Formats: sequence, structure tokens, C-alpha cells
Amino acid sequence: MSTPLLPIRFVLVEPSHPGNIGAVARAMKNMALSELVLVAPKEFPHPDATVRAAGADDLLASARIAASLPEAIADCGFVLATTARSREHHFNALEPRAAAHRVVAEARTGSPVAVVFGTERFGLSNDHLLLAHAVLRIPANPAYESLNVAMAAQLIAWEILMVQREPHAHLPLPDREVPLATPSQMQQFFEHLQGVMDEVDFRDRTQKGASLMARIKRMFNRAELDANEVNILRGFLTSVQSRRRRAGEPQ
Amino acid sequence: MSTPLLPIRFVLVEPSHPGNIGAVARAMKNMALSELVLVAPKEFPHPDATVRAAGADDLLASARIAASLPEAIADCGFVLATTARSREHHFNALEPRAAAHRVVAEARTGSPVAVVFGTERFGLSNDHLLLAHAVLRIPANPAYESLNVAMAAQLIAWEILMVQREPHAHLPLPDREVPLATPSQMQQFFEHLQGVMDEVDFRDRTQKGASLMARIKRMFNRAELDANEVNILRGFLTSVQSRRRRAGEPQ
Repeated sequence: MSTPLLPIRFVLVEPSHPGNIGAVARAMKNMALSELVLVAPKEFPHPDATVRAAGADDLLASARIAASLPEAIADCGFVLATTARSREHHFNALEPRAAAHRVVAEARTGSPVAVVFGTERFGLSNDHLLLAHAVLRIPANPAYESLNVAMAAQLIAWEILMVQREPHAHLPLPDREVPLATPSQMQQFFEHLQGVMDEVDFRDRTQKGASLMARIKRMFNRAELDANEVNILRGFLTSVQSRRRRAGEPQ
Repeated sequence: MSTPLLPIRFVLVEPSHPGNIGAVARAMKNMALSELVLVAPKEFPHPDATVRAAGADDLLASARIAASLPEAIADCGFVLATTARSREHHFNALEPRAAAHRVVAEARTGSPVAVVFGTERFGLSNDHLLLAHAVLRIPANPAYESLNVAMAAQLIAWEILMVQREPHAHLPLPDREVPLATPSQMQQFFEHLQGVMDEVDFRDRTQKGASLMARIKRMFNRAELDANEVNILRGFLTSVQSRRRRAGEPQ
């Protein structure tokens, strides 16, 4: 079986049970994935993680610890956030099989792809979701929907492996000449945009400001901007700022 | 989402870690399955099972305990055995996706279907495999193939749910007017056959006898005999016996 090592990264955000970290490591290695990043794990390393990892302790040893989700995915292209809740309004929502096709196709472009898993109790926060191009929701029993995080990781890793074994079953990747903007490029763009919004006193009259910016982030994330497009938008923002400053307009 | 309750039973043979039993229960309930049978569990009930089951403790409460695998599956039609090893010589071997199509199609005939999982350390014995119509092997990283039993259950349950959600993607079920012979009917047939083999002094000259009977079982299991066919074969065996007795042939 051919399983080329693609740059596919699983990111666990604030895992509270070290046993789950070990179980995710084992599930990943079983499915020929190797890149695990832990964002602010509550307890790690921990004997429970080592026990549950079984023969995958090499993945635990090489796991990277990050202080925040933005740090964990700063160099990534496509970012996929897992969620158990049906709150994907304004998000691109993918089921696991379609998501796996997308993940593999994106990883084949060479840019690291992140699949992000939330905390055991609360999943991913809305701020976390705003860093993702798309959300992945696992269809399940409506009466009992919430999978254990390691089970979710197993299932997604399985679908990713299956896509790699079926080379002719790929869904076409969106046509793209330039890599996706990285999360940190997007963050700089959003900060730039917020700055201009403040300067021109553009505010949401009906909702609080955080909610407006969240809407805007979801829109741009759905658009899956490439690096050039972000540069174009930032160039526009810079022009707006220079123009206003040259014109000496009142703040 | 429509998830009719099909008679699909997960059977865990001699599970040694109660935590795994709980994790399997949760995985099953997440995927809208409900029938769990435990063959000679080492420790059950157990707090570890309850903790890992999370909200699926109703499946633990209704789990049936059986003394042996034949007892656990006596009323079943199609029986599928999971295995991590590549020893499916003379077995019908299915991958999870094809297996799920088959399981759902068989369950829709109304006969209970069993998916059998082995012990954490040793999987299923050869005797266990001889009770199955087909074996299921999960493709995995060749360097690290063995999945945790609950992970395997999650993945198979997921594929079963997916088949139920894609009603037009079914592979055709083999044409069959009569239900599959049950495992206990098959067992009676094999005992009958062994009796006749002994009477006529039919023995393997090159291998030990157990191995010959195993080969024969695998052949008939692959044939997926229905109840009428087993009756025909047993009628034949009875005729052989009567004929010999009438003829007063020497034992």
C-alpha cells in the first residue's frame, strides 16, 4: 500500500485527558499520519498518554507543543476545524469523506494542512472556528452526537487514508496558482482591516463590534484567499489610509 | 437523518480492558447501533467501562453476556469476523466499506448480523474465524497495523452508518430466497459431517485432522449456505449413514 507522507497535521486544542492524546497518536500512526501538535495541553507528557499510544509513542515524543492555535497553524495552508455542533452558518461545512478529499488534495500542493480538534468538553470556541477555512462535522446519531475526540480523529484519519488509496476518486481541487494565504497572513489582514474600519468609524449599528468582525472573518475565510489576493486587499486598505492621511481628513 | 434500527450486533470476545467496552458502547451509540454482546469479559461491569461509555451507559446496561462465541451468535445470519492479520487465505476478505454494504444489506433481510471483535492482545482465534462467513481487515499503516478494538468498532460503525445514509449506493446482495443457515445449524452440520468422516475413516493423510476440518469449514463458510442447502447436505450425510448401516458394513 502506498502511503506517501503528506503534510497533514492534527492539532488538539487544550486536551484535558492525556489518555486521549495517546489514543489520537495511535489512531494517527495506524493511518500513516505523523504530525501531532498540542495546544496548551492540561497534562503532557503523562503516563496515560503513553499507555494509550501503545506503539505510537514516537508520535508523542515528536509532538510539538504550541501556546495558542494561531501559533500551531501559522505556517499552514488549508485549515479545517472539527465541530460537533450544527452551527456552521456562514461556514463551509464538509462531511468527513468530502473533507478528506479536500485535505489530501490541499496537502499534495505542499502546504501543510491542519485538522483542528477542540477540547473534550466544549469543542472549539468561536474564535478558533474563525481561523478555519471550513468546518468538518461528523454525521452521527441525532440522539447522541458527540464523539470522543480520539474516535473523531480515528475516523477522519481513516477517511484520509482511504482517499490516498483511491487515487482516481479525487474531487477536483479548486483551481489555484498561488498558495492559500497562511493563517498569520489572514490575521494581519484582519488587523489591518479592523484598523481601517476604526479609522473610518465603520461600526455595526445593530450588533456589538466583535460580532461584525466575526461575520467578516467568516466571509473571507469561506473565500479561501490566496496570498496574492490578501496582498491586493491589503494594498487597497493601505491606499485608503494614505488617501485619508494625504487629504488630512479629521479623525 | 434516517437511521432505522437494523439488527446489527457487535460482539466483543473476551475483552480484557473494561475501558474498551465502554468506548465501544459509546462508538456504537454515536453511530446509531445498540446491540452489544460480550463473550466472557474479564471484568464487567466496571467503573472504567462506565466512564468511557459517557452517555452510552444504556448500551452497557442492556449488553448481553455470553459464555462463548457460538452462544453469542447462535441466532445470527451473516457473521463477519474482524482481524488485523493477513491470514485470510480461504476466507472471503472484505474491507470496511464493502463489509458495511454487505452488513446493512444482510441486516435488511431481518436476520441478525454479527460483527465480531477479538481480544485486545491476540485478536480472534482460528476457531473463532471458522464461525464467520467472511473476515474484515482494516487497511492500515503497514508499519503499525493494529488498531485499538474500540477504534476498529468506531470505524466499522461509521461505515455502516454511511451506507444507511446513502440508500442508492448499495452493492447488490447475493440473490437468496431462504435465510442464511445460522451458526448453530452450521455447527450441527459440521458435527454431522465429522461423524460421517470418522465412520468412513476419511482422514487427512498429510496433516493433522483439526487442520483438515478447518479447511472444510472455511470452504462451506465461504459458500454462505442457506438453511435449505444445509438440510440437503445433512440429508445426504444421513443417507450415507443409513446405507452403511443397512449394508452392515464393518466399522
